[in-house]
Amino acid sequence: MPLRSDWSDRRCPIARSLDVVGDPWVLLVIREALVGTRRFDQFRDILGVSESVLATRLRTMVEAGLLAKVPYKAGNRTQHEYVLTDAGADLLPVVQALVLWGERHLPHAQPGQLTIIHEGCGRPTASADTCTHCGLALTAEDVSWQRPWRQPDLTPLGSR
Amino acid sequence: MPLRSDWSDRRCPIARSLDVVGDPWVLLVIREALVGTRRFDQFRDILGVSESVLATRLRTMVEAGLLAKVPYKAGNRTQHEYVLTDAGADLLPVVQALVLWGERHLPHAQPGQLTIIHEGCGRPTASADTCTHCGLALTAEDVSWQRPWRQPDLTPLGSR
Repeated sequence: MPLRSDWSDRRCPIARSLDVVGDPWVLLVIREALVGTRRFDQFRDILGVSESVLATRLRTMVEAGLLAKVPYKAGNRTQHEYVLTDAGADLLPVVQALVLWGERHLPHAQPGQLTIIHEGCGRPTASADTCTHCGLALTAEDVSWQRPWRQPDLTPLGSR
Repeated sequence: MPLRSDWSDRRCPIARSLDVVGDPWVLLVIREALVGTRRFDQFRDILGVSESVLATRLRTMVEAGLLAKVPYKAGNRTQHEYVLTDAGADLLPVVQALVLWGERHLPHAQPGQLTIIHEGCGRPTASADTCTHCGLALTAEDVSWQRPWRQPDLTPLGSR
């Protein structure tokens, strides 16, 4: 990351993590990858980010092992998709901690919050990584987000 | 934040949160404030950050309501300390989610991890916001961090 020193060898795991995910665009790309976005043009359009910023972030995220670059055929051409690795999907608690903090301390003027649903029991959770109803640890594969400002249906996370 | 657009009115709470804490220095200042650092010189020396970067971050964090600027007497002069507000202390799950992710996916070559201890039951937790032993929600006031590379004793968080 160009804006500060290399924190990858710090003893503090917070600094080491921020060395990889300390850029806000990186966590928004993770958010989109969690809800199923995979292609460059989709990331660009949904995030409203410039192509050069997006290209730099995707490259560093692939290098850091958060995303895998997977080829697919588009007609005669080979294109690439960006798919969450296990390490990328494991950022779910970081992203959801930001959800819960934002809804609590920076409420939006319009009604309709992001609600985290544990699919295993169908109930909302107030924790970033644990179902507060049944106590199970949450993974992207068994979580959906209710985002009423985007769509009436639940958004399943992960690779489903 | 100068490096990108204003996300404070986004419907997505992740974007709104990143508008405030999307800078890596901000989360490192929160880390230090959680372990009891309060003074400009201490933040500067522990974080190894330039005075101008630190001053900018502290000012925006006070404006955003993460820190309160509190006067104290130093001899004949009035100085200021920076103390976590409730909103700042509520970032504990974000910080601890980064701890857990970093220890899992970016392990340090030297032994000695950061372990999160729930003081209420004295046991380590594998969750950012919930004691995985007793199930209680964690707050800064009842959490200590074991950071063996810094000190043999536990570091109590919060204002204790």
